[in-house]
Amino acid sequence: MAFTAVELIELKRDGKKLPSEGIEWLIAAYTEGDVPDYQMAAMAMAIMFNGLDSDELAAWTSAMLASGDTLDFSDMSLPKVDKHSTGGVGDKISIPLAPLVASCGLAVPMMSGRGLGHTGGTLDKLESIPGFEPRIDKDRFREILTRHQLVLAGQSDTMVPADRQLYALRDSTATVPSIPLIASSIMSKKLSEGIDGLVLDVKTGSGAFMEELEEARQLARTMVGIGLESNVETVALITSMSQPLGNEVGNANEIRESVDVLRGEGPEDVTELTFALAEVMLELGGVHGGRERLEEAIASGAALQKLKDVVAAHGGDVAVLDDTSLLEVADQQATISAPRSGFVTGCDARTIGVVATRLGAGRERKEEDVDHGVAITLLAKIGAEVSESDPLAVVHYNDEAAWVAQRERLASAWTIEDGDPPPHEDLVMERIDRSQI
Amino acid sequence: MAFTAVELIELKRDGKKLPSEGIEWLIAAYTEGDVPDYQMAAMAMAIMFNGLDSDELAAWTSAMLASGDTLDFSDMSLPKVDKHSTGGVGDKISIPLAPLVASCGLAVPMMSGRGLGHTGGTLDKLESIPGFEPRIDKDRFREILTRHQLVLAGQSDTMVPADRQLYALRDSTATVPSIPLIASSIMSKKLSEGIDGLVLDVKTGSGAFMEELEEARQLARTMVGIGLESNVETVALITSMSQPLGNEVGNANEIRESVDVLRGEGPEDVTELTFALAEVMLELGGVHGGRERLEEAIASGAALQKLKDVVAAHGGDVAVLDDTSLLEVADQQATISAPRSGFVTGCDARTIGVVATRLGAGRERKEEDVDHGVAITLLAKIGAEVSESDPLAVVHYNDEAAWVAQRERLASAWTIEDGDPPPHEDLVMERIDRSQI
Repeated sequence: MAFTAVELIELKRDGKKLPSEGIEWLIAAYTEGDVPDYQMAAMAMAIMFNGLDSDELAAWTSAMLASGDTLDFSDMSLPKVDKHSTGGVGDKISIPLAPLVASCGLAVPMMSGRGLGHTGGTLDKLESIPGFEPRIDKDRFREILTRHQLVLAGQSDTMVPADRQLYALRDSTATVPSIPLIASSIMSKKLSEGIDGLVLDVKTGSGAFMEELEEARQLARTMVGIGLESNVETVALITSMSQPLGNEVGNANEIRESVDVLRGEGPEDVTELTFALAEVMLELGGVHGGRERLEEAIASGAALQKLKDVVAAHGGDVAVLDDTSLLEVADQQATISAPRSGFVTGCDARTIGVVATRLGAGRERKEEDVDHGVAITLLAKIGAEVSESDPLAVVHYNDEAAWVAQRERLASAWTIEDGDPPPHEDLVMERIDRSQI
Repeated sequence: MAFTAVELIELKRDGKKLPSEGIEWLIAAYTEGDVPDYQMAAMAMAIMFNGLDSDELAAWTSAMLASGDTLDFSDMSLPKVDKHSTGGVGDKISIPLAPLVASCGLAVPMMSGRGLGHTGGTLDKLESIPGFEPRIDKDRFREILTRHQLVLAGQSDTMVPADRQLYALRDSTATVPSIPLIASSIMSKKLSEGIDGLVLDVKTGSGAFMEELEEARQLARTMVGIGLESNVETVALITSMSQPLGNEVGNANEIRESVDVLRGEGPEDVTELTFALAEVMLELGGVHGGRERLEEAIASGAALQKLKDVVAAHGGDVAVLDDTSLLEVADQQATISAPRSGFVTGCDARTIGVVATRLGAGRERKEEDVDHGVAITLLAKIGAEVSESDPLAVVHYNDEAAWVAQRERLASAWTIEDGDPPPHEDLVMERIDRSQI
């Protein structure tokens, strides 16, 4: 069958179904440069309005997958399970989570991305470990995974090239926030890893990409559907991102906090979410023992040792994990103080994420570098009782002008009120799995 | 104010209003190549879904106008009035109409286009006159208009370049059928002519771009609104294009039929529509006398003389207007016969237009040449009573293989039924003017 891009755009524009072969042809031709950006931009905008149904979405995702290399570890007997988060502020969960489950008998072929906008990226955090090199080739990837049951790599250029091309196009054509396009972008990257199971951490709340719970649910259901369609057992947890995760926002400081979790000394919320996701991963991999087994891996030091081993395999300096005070920290320090007494009822994740980015902890454009030593250390989160002039946060920065420009914005992140402490809100809000699809 | 294309696309995507300055910036930056095709494609698709309101449309049209040269004949005392048709099959009306009203005291600075798809273009028809040259520069345009109160030019490259660029983009991104984009494209070209009044022939029916009456009404209202906004008195007639106009479909033959109209010997429908549009143009130009004055211009030969004068000014051979049997005609001839007796109840304009195009009378791609001698001469239109094997049409063609491939399709254009003759349908269906806006 022969297709033309115009005919396919027309179908989607008119709310009709795209044939699977048409989708295959379109993505392949786009990747090869035979379909120009302007036609794909029109298609993406038509999808923004008319969506993709489950058949179209399956075809779209597998066409994206087919645009590049995929990994195959079917010769490895361990169950291969990975995790993806839709991104949040202070979300360092992958760093304690991956070695924790790998030390319990799973293989984790993880590929992570860099931060963009107000949310951080796992890769940027890992690179605050001196020498850590996430860019490895396929052979080295397999070697590290075989040896350590864990690899913490960056996304390879040869995998899902259609996604890289399409993502850049969407970014410049206001077609990013389309659930089918987000879901197929995430899932094509994860499915290319050759995994058997996947847990998705779909965030909702002010600091998340999907601010509304209903949108987060829809994205979660869409991704779980794609995973199951590809025979990858997929479960999503919908989790709150109304305030940052943990007490540290900033790359090197988040490594320190991750090590704390693996030492059993992490903040409650980070520990809770790490365990919740880890339990799902064990379940997906058919590994028994649940929570107890995870606690044992922490207590024995096996989980931390796994992180050290894999960091060493990536060329990283393990000394900073043994003594996290060796990690980079910015030169300047400032404090945000409570303007009044009361209970903290708000600690806005987006505001804190934006300020951290503006201070250099993140990037607003892909080509920018991050400053690993910049961080915001939170001393009072939702539920804390504070007195006037108590410190709410300590800010580590290098750029004085940027700090002066951001100081007030950061202070505005906190809401402090009289009366009773605010009601406790669950961090893990919902679970979406095959029973809801 | 500074704008980015992404922000503007986002506004339109979300159904919000584009600021006028944003539209100005966007069209200018697009014309200069600073906004790439892919961003404009996403914007065009967002407009397909969310439209443009009257303020946006006015800004969009004037930004298109501002992208290139405009003509100014404000120093000429005659009222300058033009006509535009949304395109149909057998639509040669401009050719008798323009000299008719010019001979009655209006100035007509007409710029016409070429045919594309199943509809013909005035320029292609005029070029079947040997030597006729529609490409003239600004100075020559003014010279011919001043001398003859009429010019029959092609669109200049320096006028409304944004439209040329945007039209090509829309054509390849399935964003052609958007009423605000169609309306602003047509109106920016017409407004660039420096006219005081404009009559629009908005066609509806199977052979028209707007097949549904309601769509045609909406387009007509939109264009009349844009015209009035720019202080150009604009009136639209909505006219039927369910069967071809006149008895000739094909370039040289349509010149012959146009000359017939100017001799007072034209087919009833072409004559009727020519007069209806001419009356509106006289009204718009404040020229008194109406129908009677037009009939006098035909009877006296003044209208035909005006056509001859302007054709000569464009380098055309006037001899073919004196003796239209000198016009080009294709070598081969075939007849379509009635398969049964009865009344003709259908004579499908689109089918006949498509066949004429496939035989070479039109073009499917911009770069193709047309064969001026190819034509379909209709011998039986809606309402005619025919006996079995009576000729319905004579086809003039050069390409035997194309004819063999199209014969059956052409025959399918006619519907012949028993019973009473079909009810008469008005050619001019509605008038849209400032009273309806």
